[in-house]
Amino acid sequence: MLPLNPNQMKKMMKQMGIEMETIEAEEVIIKTKDADYVFKNPVVNKISAKGIETFQITGSYEVVEKVVINEEDVKLLMEQAGVSEEEARKALEEAKGDLAEALMKLQGE
Amino acid sequence: MLPLNPNQMKKMMKQMGIEMETIEAEEVIIKTKDADYVFKNPVVNKISAKGIETFQITGSYEVVEKVVINEEDVKLLMEQAGVSEEEARKALEEAKGDLAEALMKLQGE
Amino acid sequence: MLPLNPNQMKKMMKQMGIEMETIEAEEVIIKTKDADYVFKNPVVNKISAKGIETFQITGSYEVVEKVVINEEDVKLLMEQAGVSEEEARKALEEAKGDLAEALMKLQGE
Amino acid sequence: MLPLNPNQMKKMMKQMGIEMETIEAEEVIIKTKDADYVFKNPVVNKISAKGIETFQITGSYEVVEKVVINEEDVKLLMEQAGVSEEEARKALEEAKGDLAEALMKLQGE
Repeated sequence: MLPLNPNQMKKMMKQMGIEMETIEAEEVIIKTKDADYVFKNPVVNKISAKGIETFQITGSYEVVEKVVINEEDVKLLMEQAGVSEEEARKALEEAKGDLAEALMKLQGE
Repeated sequence: MLPLNPNQMKKMMKQMGIEMETIEAEEVIIKTKDADYVFKNPVVNKISAKGIETFQITGSYEVVEKVVINEEDVKLLMEQAGVSEEEARKALEEAKGDLAEALMKLQGE
Repeated sequence: MLPLNPNQMKKMMKQMGIEMETIEAEEVIIKTKDADYVFKNPVVNKISAKGIETFQITGSYEVVEKVVINEEDVKLLMEQAGVSEEEARKALEEAKGDLAEALMKLQGE
Repeated sequence: MLPLNPNQMKKMMKQMGIEMETIEAEEVIIKTKDADYVFKNPVVNKISAKGIETFQITGSYEVVEKVVINEEDVKLLMEQAGVSEEEARKALEEAKGDLAEALMKLQGE
């Protein structure tokens, strides 16, 4: 953002007590409850200032959206709602893995 | 399947040249293109016979269904179909990450 | 182990109430405390018998041995033993991440 | 680094065309060839400026140092150097998985 070249930037940072180190990363995965952010060969810089370390990640990434299906829930749903394994699994997928919601939907039909 | 206790089984296996070793596994992940099977604290046995090693996994598991959304595809779709980021992302989700299918759907509407 | 071809085997298994399904796995990871077993493109068969599912993994694999170094332990060790970061880290590596052992070794020298 | 509270900071950033979003991350893994950095419940901020997205990670982390042992290398070493599996494995560990180095060491003894 500032009109400084990398070397000037590094020098200025050092004067401010900030150190920067590049991490040779092959992959970075940021995991959240519903999705993973997956970076292949990103640029990773570790910045240390006043005892605090910050890792900065840049590069292209994919978002892997996740729906967690518990296999015991599939069986429970088959019994409770009297449906096939395939129907139970589909209901759980649509309910994003929520058993109660899947059951209500199947029974409401 | 046979009326043998574990010790008898082990003895019989040894006579047949089969060795079994338990692996103290904390987690097993079987990754496929569309889903991961995730086992927490499963029972894992390594069976060696005639130079072939087989790992046997048992225990409860979850299936994590995955849809991979490429961030560049989101941007491309926003430009090509003239939709918002949210709409682009939703179209890609419904198309299970398939750009061509998502674009056709958005243009067909 | 028996002189049966895959089709005969499958037929026999079915008669015994055993079902087998191949899982198109890209990767399998068996995680233990000290090591991960990593299989690339293994053969994975899911075997169901009497409500019990067993997953059988075969194929070449790597063992990734792990030593977990806690960054707070590195700092603690630097303070307590009055050593450099590099020395602290090396001591923890040799102690396989065990802080007490690393400290004793550094102080015993 | 500047005497601004988070709200002032956010306002200033917005005026500069910078947007910040917090990602509710459960875990972040930065993978390098020899080690993984593992963060549990880190603070993750996504910063967008001029079409460039940067993810900033802060929080305590562990470094998991890795040594990759190829199982085929273990067998090769047993044959070539005439040693036991345990000796072959230990030599590979000490050579950080490097087959040539492990073989030279075993033959040099």
